[in-house]
Amino acid sequence: MELVITMLPSSPHVRSVYLGEYGVLKGAAPGTPLIDSSTIDPLTAREVAMDAKAKGCPMVDAPVSGGVGGAEAGTLTFMVGGDAKDFEIARPVLQAMGKNIVHCGGIGNGQVAKICNNMMLAVEMIATSEGMTLAAKLGMDPKVFAAIVNTSSGRCWSSDTYNPYPGVLEGVPSSRGYTGGFGSDLMLKDLTLATDAAKAAKHPVMLGALAQQIYQKHSNDGNGPKDFSSVILQYMKQ
Amino acid sequence: MELVITMLPSSPHVRSVYLGEYGVLKGAAPGTPLIDSSTIDPLTAREVAMDAKAKGCPMVDAPVSGGVGGAEAGTLTFMVGGDAKDFEIARPVLQAMGKNIVHCGGIGNGQVAKICNNMMLAVEMIATSEGMTLAAKLGMDPKVFAAIVNTSSGRCWSSDTYNPYPGVLEGVPSSRGYTGGFGSDLMLKDLTLATDAAKAAKHPVMLGALAQQIYQKHSNDGNGPKDFSSVILQYMKQ
Amino acid sequence: MELVITMLPSSPHVRSVYLGEYGVLKGAAPGTPLIDSSTIDPLTAREVAMDAKAKGCPMVDAPVSGGVGGAEAGTLTFMVGGDAKDFEIARPVLQAMGKNIVHCGGIGNGQVAKICNNMMLAVEMIATSEGMTLAAKLGMDPKVFAAIVNTSSGRCWSSDTYNPYPGVLEGVPSSRGYTGGFGSDLMLKDLTLATDAAKAAKHPVMLGALAQQIYQKHSNDGNGPKDFSSVILQYMKQ
Amino acid sequence: MELVITMLPSSPHVRSVYLGEYGVLKGAAPGTPLIDSSTIDPLTAREVAMDAKAKGCPMVDAPVSGGVGGAEAGTLTFMVGGDAKDFEIARPVLQAMGKNIVHCGGIGNGQVAKICNNMMLAVEMIATSEGMTLAAKLGMDPKVFAAIVNTSSGRCWSSDTYNPYPGVLEGVPSSRGYTGGFGSDLMLKDLTLATDAAKAAKHPVMLGALAQQIYQKHSNDGNGPKDFSSVILQYMKQ
Repeated sequence: MELVITMLPSSPHVRSVYLGEYGVLKGAAPGTPLIDSSTIDPLTAREVAMDAKAKGCPMVDAPVSGGVGGAEAGTLTFMVGGDAKDFEIARPVLQAMGKNIVHCGGIGNGQVAKICNNMMLAVEMIATSEGMTLAAKLGMDPKVFAAIVNTSSGRCWSSDTYNPYPGVLEGVPSSRGYTGGFGSDLMLKDLTLATDAAKAAKHPVMLGALAQQIYQKHSNDGNGPKDFSSVILQYMKQ
Repeated sequence: MELVITMLPSSPHVRSVYLGEYGVLKGAAPGTPLIDSSTIDPLTAREVAMDAKAKGCPMVDAPVSGGVGGAEAGTLTFMVGGDAKDFEIARPVLQAMGKNIVHCGGIGNGQVAKICNNMMLAVEMIATSEGMTLAAKLGMDPKVFAAIVNTSSGRCWSSDTYNPYPGVLEGVPSSRGYTGGFGSDLMLKDLTLATDAAKAAKHPVMLGALAQQIYQKHSNDGNGPKDFSSVILQYMKQ
Repeated sequence: MELVITMLPSSPHVRSVYLGEYGVLKGAAPGTPLIDSSTIDPLTAREVAMDAKAKGCPMVDAPVSGGVGGAEAGTLTFMVGGDAKDFEIARPVLQAMGKNIVHCGGIGNGQVAKICNNMMLAVEMIATSEGMTLAAKLGMDPKVFAAIVNTSSGRCWSSDTYNPYPGVLEGVPSSRGYTGGFGSDLMLKDLTLATDAAKAAKHPVMLGALAQQIYQKHSNDGNGPKDFSSVILQYMKQ
Repeated sequence: MELVITMLPSSPHVRSVYLGEYGVLKGAAPGTPLIDSSTIDPLTAREVAMDAKAKGCPMVDAPVSGGVGGAEAGTLTFMVGGDAKDFEIARPVLQAMGKNIVHCGGIGNGQVAKICNNMMLAVEMIATSEGMTLAAKLGMDPKVFAAIVNTSSGRCWSSDTYNPYPGVLEGVPSSRGYTGGFGSDLMLKDLTLATDAAKAAKHPVMLGALAQQIYQKHSNDGNGPKDFSSVILQYMKQ
């Protein structure tokens, strides 16, 4: 076995696959590089990597963003946490799958980068949803408003690249009934990881916590499989 | 008198200056173009313009963004609401003062564009503050995190152009103790206008309303005169 | 004319009825007692009363609670703001209609008492809704949970007298499909008054502001005419 | 050994003490009654009890409320989850320590009752803080306002028994600088358990989540050891 790459749904799975009775660390020869591309909480990532290190196996956490489309096109971004030399071992492997391989610092920081970015993204997507729908309700053409915001201080990726208001941009989920893209339930999972990490770190994240609640409500309303930009529907249906 | 330009602190002032006993509409000759550059609520803007129209005076609302720096450099943005032909009358006048003169649609829409943009901006600034401080608390270098976000889906003007975390960007308020820039109390005023307009329109804006509260608290804590990116201090001081 | 009692839907109506061209203050003889039982913002109540005083008319604000049922049974509560001697003039009149006539202090304080009480009530009703539904989802019998809360530190009027969970109490709106009672749109109106007053006073009310948003969403979902305890439906339907 | 009673700070401790290599379940004779009075998450309580049952040991979860004062006076309340016959075994033991021994249903429900009650309590305490301070800022005497609320629909334990506004009630923490009582950090812990349980159950708790954030901020501001009614200071200092 030359190297191990895993991509698992949650922290308990990672813990079990690496540390379990028949887990990777039981069988891997010392020196085997380990790459975990799951999105999990940073603390688990750090614990598992410490155990791996004790077994002589260099390990990095390397969560990915870019979605199914990015995977097919080979344009994924990997956010990698680990020692510099472990990062160099993992880099060529990841380059075969993705376009941007970013070193985020020590082990666990791949997770930190991903969940903090996605918490910002979720809040910005809801902010864009509120701004677009309020402007429309107050009488503005949504396309005109989006054009103004996108050259102004309110611009963000959610407004200029992935606008949630139907008909503003082409080729995005909002133009095709919120199919495809990054599901609301996946965003909810990342928000849960981010707010859990904030709790463990005793750090307040008021808007992040409220965004987590809004996505939970949105999911319970039956929108879990729809793209996460469908959260705008919370502001449109009456 | 060839034309009237006003820039006043709040809706009652605008109402009084235009509609009062000794107000502009009492003295202006029919046909005099009226430009109001105040940031006020859209309903007042529409009411005053309607009265102006009845007197034969074309009126536009044209709130401005860009701050003191933009005014000195002549790079202000004017967001203009009014009929197309009234916009054309106002445009050359505004071009003498600003760089971007944007037609936002009918009367009042200048206000709509500005307050909805600024509500998005406030939420995104707080989102950036939460993301930056959480990433730092979880062990990431803030500059590295900002670099990742700014090439990823969490990027926004607040993260890539006006980052609130001290030391990430040069030449912005966060690099000079939050002096200069756009005061927290001015942002609070715009958030108040936006949430008031949302109430009047019976439209929910959950994150916008919470952002208004956070800026109110921030102001009451004594930060009203500091740049609005100083809201990050709500997440840093312990 | 011996005395004037009014009960009007909103501040502009009160202003117009008392201060308008054909308003009460134009026609009332000096000394005529004025009682306004509308629920409006305290600032308007104070302004109108000051004008009344200048005309020699003693005025109190006396918003009411207790609902249609209370009106029919004569058990309404009047919360009265005004000078002590003006309160004494109004008291016997109000006693003919209500059971509890409470002096809240100077003019406008009737409004303050009512909107601050109702803001607390709205937050507590949502808190009860969240607690009851969470306990049920985690496997507890709602009646058993309510019994425990009602003898413990979580008890409130919303849990022990007006429980929103269907089947916990008899004779309350939750036991009859949320008909009757105090409509969600009326609660939304009072929350709007309370959060507006907080804004004007530069006072943060985080939970009050979020409660206002939740009732706005609840109303937009079509529940405006239902009793305000129906807000629990935001946590029950999936 | 006739029976085991434990009271531990968190879920991992309970797991370790009962299930660990040298844990209770390793040493306890079948039939030994087990009572855990820790406040932990309901899922852990259920898992541990299931293992205990498999070993033939009846187990109940029995978190307690009433504080240091209640412990000294013997007036604690125990909220007990477990089978009816296991409850009957535990009852006489708990009666030696507390006044109210409440059966909440199956195993884990003691935890559910406690954390859901305390989530309601936290929200109501903040609601009372907002209502009291807003009424005061709008010009009402806090004692007068409290008296009105406490005979009206806004009343709750936090307003009538434990009012957070200094000087309204005697003998409560707000009358002695928020010393004694139930610490803000303990309330934060319970809110964290409640919102974690809500996340695991995929249940939204908007106000509960925001209350958790407000207590986190309050703790980070240095108020962790103060009584939890000190959260009103978030609304008083300027």
